[in-house]
Amino acid sequence: MGAGTEPAEARCDPSEGRVYLDHNATTPLAPEAAQAVQDALSQAWGNPSSAHPAGRKAKELIGRARESLAQMVGARPEDIVFTSGGTEANNMVIHTARRHFLESQTGDSPGTPHIVTSSVEHDSIRLPLEQLGKDSLAEATFVPVSPQSGRAEVDDVLAAIRPNTWASPALEGSGCVPEQGRGWQCPQVTVLSVPQFYGPRIGALYVRGPGSTAPLHPLLFGGGQERSFRPGTENTPMIAGLGQAAELVSKNWEAYEAHMRDVRDYLEARLEASFGKERIHFNSRFKGSKRLCNTSNFSILGPGLQGHRVLAHCKVLLASVGAACHSDKGERPSPILLGCGIPPAVAQNALRLSVGRHTSRADVDLAVQDLLQAVAQLEQHHAP
Amino acid sequence: MGAGTEPAEARCDPSEGRVYLDHNATTPLAPEAAQAVQDALSQAWGNPSSAHPAGRKAKELIGRARESLAQMVGARPEDIVFTSGGTEANNMVIHTARRHFLESQTGDSPGTPHIVTSSVEHDSIRLPLEQLGKDSLAEATFVPVSPQSGRAEVDDVLAAIRPNTWASPALEGSGCVPEQGRGWQCPQVTVLSVPQFYGPRIGALYVRGPGSTAPLHPLLFGGGQERSFRPGTENTPMIAGLGQAAELVSKNWEAYEAHMRDVRDYLEARLEASFGKERIHFNSRFKGSKRLCNTSNFSILGPGLQGHRVLAHCKVLLASVGAACHSDKGERPSPILLGCGIPPAVAQNALRLSVGRHTSRADVDLAVQDLLQAVAQLEQHHAP
Repeated sequence: MGAGTEPAEARCDPSEGRVYLDHNATTPLAPEAAQAVQDALSQAWGNPSSAHPAGRKAKELIGRARESLAQMVGARPEDIVFTSGGTEANNMVIHTARRHFLESQTGDSPGTPHIVTSSVEHDSIRLPLEQLGKDSLAEATFVPVSPQSGRAEVDDVLAAIRPNTWASPALEGSGCVPEQGRGWQCPQVTVLSVPQFYGPRIGALYVRGPGSTAPLHPLLFGGGQERSFRPGTENTPMIAGLGQAAELVSKNWEAYEAHMRDVRDYLEARLEASFGKERIHFNSRFKGSKRLCNTSNFSILGPGLQGHRVLAHCKVLLASVGAACHSDKGERPSPILLGCGIPPAVAQNALRLSVGRHTSRADVDLAVQDLLQAVAQLEQHHAP
Repeated sequence: MGAGTEPAEARCDPSEGRVYLDHNATTPLAPEAAQAVQDALSQAWGNPSSAHPAGRKAKELIGRARESLAQMVGARPEDIVFTSGGTEANNMVIHTARRHFLESQTGDSPGTPHIVTSSVEHDSIRLPLEQLGKDSLAEATFVPVSPQSGRAEVDDVLAAIRPNTWASPALEGSGCVPEQGRGWQCPQVTVLSVPQFYGPRIGALYVRGPGSTAPLHPLLFGGGQERSFRPGTENTPMIAGLGQAAELVSKNWEAYEAHMRDVRDYLEARLEASFGKERIHFNSRFKGSKRLCNTSNFSILGPGLQGHRVLAHCKVLLASVGAACHSDKGERPSPILLGCGIPPAVAQNALRLSVGRHTSRADVDLAVQDLLQAVAQLEQHHAP
């Protein structure tokens, strides 16, 4: 981190003197959340299901975290189900879709449900659907997104609907999602991936009236925790940290958002000013579509400037070319960007820079300077 | 904790001045493991899949923890798959059994697999099997355990086998399991539940040659982590703590075991001396069967001395009547004990006291004294 970073976060930096602009891959823990984890580790280590005081203390802590999370999303505490992370929560939603379809059918041969989603989903949506397809347990249609709007168009969704279509889960979501990993939303279910809001590695599902208003079917069976929707001894310290992270968001979200948007816009302005408008292509700007306030997905145009090569030549910037779980496929252009209509030659140069709560304009200046020298180096090598 | 407890653990006690004899429900974190969690939270918060240094640091930490865990169980690092806990790992094993059966069948109608297990399994084994039964996806036979040995007998297992029987997963396990929650073993698969060895809330599966020598089928689909056997961003700090806890076990297991066995045996001797031999029934002593070195499951015989009532009248002892996840069913005798042939009138009085690495003989004296006063109080109420 450069100037303007608070000491608490600077202390947390795994590579001092670097500028971390990969907050979509994960965020550091907020110091308050780290403290909550630590306190729970030392003071609430009992099994939350134990009837004695050691257990009750843990149970109370989990209850408070559930309330904080509910408040953050405008839910009731009983609508929150803790999971091990976003991947498990997304798999649970797909699983629920299939089981709910089956259980709401009458007759002896209930048939196979059909699920409509978009072509730009995270692997934890796409792959469980593909697996259900392989097992002949469900059919899925992946509606392509429009290159104009970056979103699946209503007409295309309607055209995909069949008599056995269950619902259109992701299409109420946040528009084109070249910035993956935020989970997905439908009117009754929201997946919450905590490491993206300065909390620990854990997840939660917000389901309005789970099992009554909205269906929810467990993936796991066991000791009855989380009202049997998600059994297994609760991860008290991570849940406590999540609660604290949620409290920070409830209290400060407007300030966080304004700051991140300001710094992101400054980044985009600096990129254009430094490289020239004609050399920068912004890959996630679509007319009329919202986008994440903290993220810029752009390509520096020119031969030999593939995203992974540019990053490899950076000396201070820590960023990525897309979702972290695809980092081993870094040399191929992102299928999400291609799906949004970005030409391959542009998509392969893509960089994803995501700013955080403590990223300063000075950090941005350092990052852009670093990109300039990386590109200059690459162009020198590439010159005939 | 009473005298003899080390300051580090005493500091961690959620209810100072009490004697915690519920180490089977969960253990406090070893100070070394807590430190490892804390260090990872502050220094290795990057996404382990990120290609840059912040990610690489996390990835290295996970690699080291995997090696430590492998060393503890005598495995190769590549045989370890991290999961969110024992419940998930057990569900994954059941799921694998079913899929492996299906995939190894030839012909168009592969039939339904049949799984043999014992009648004294944890709910994370029993319930997924029952669910598969409800869905007509598998059949299960729960072989009762013998009241003589506390184990399922070979003849009963052989009698349960059908042409479509997959394997006998749990029957290689650790004998009668009135002390649930340790997971189960078959020759190729071991479930590791870390909060039982002074590590954080996380689990792992040891599978010899997963996907090659031994089958392993994922329950979740997503970003490819854990070689796609268990995708989802890794919980670096919990994994780091697990690695540290495993190192302690590798280094000190013999000393831990000798200490716990000594204190447990002292506890049983004190119980007999204090209440009289004829008033104490030990529920998990079976001829020729091994039992956990740290645990005593016993009943104080007499009317009105149900386990939950005795514990409610204790002032310093923190213990339980059985598995923590059944604490809300405390008033009914444990089906596990009944399954082992313990009469209902004895089983309903059962108490499960489990000692830890730092439990001292002085702690035991306090606990037994506490039980004596609790029983005296109850008998006073119960007197005509």
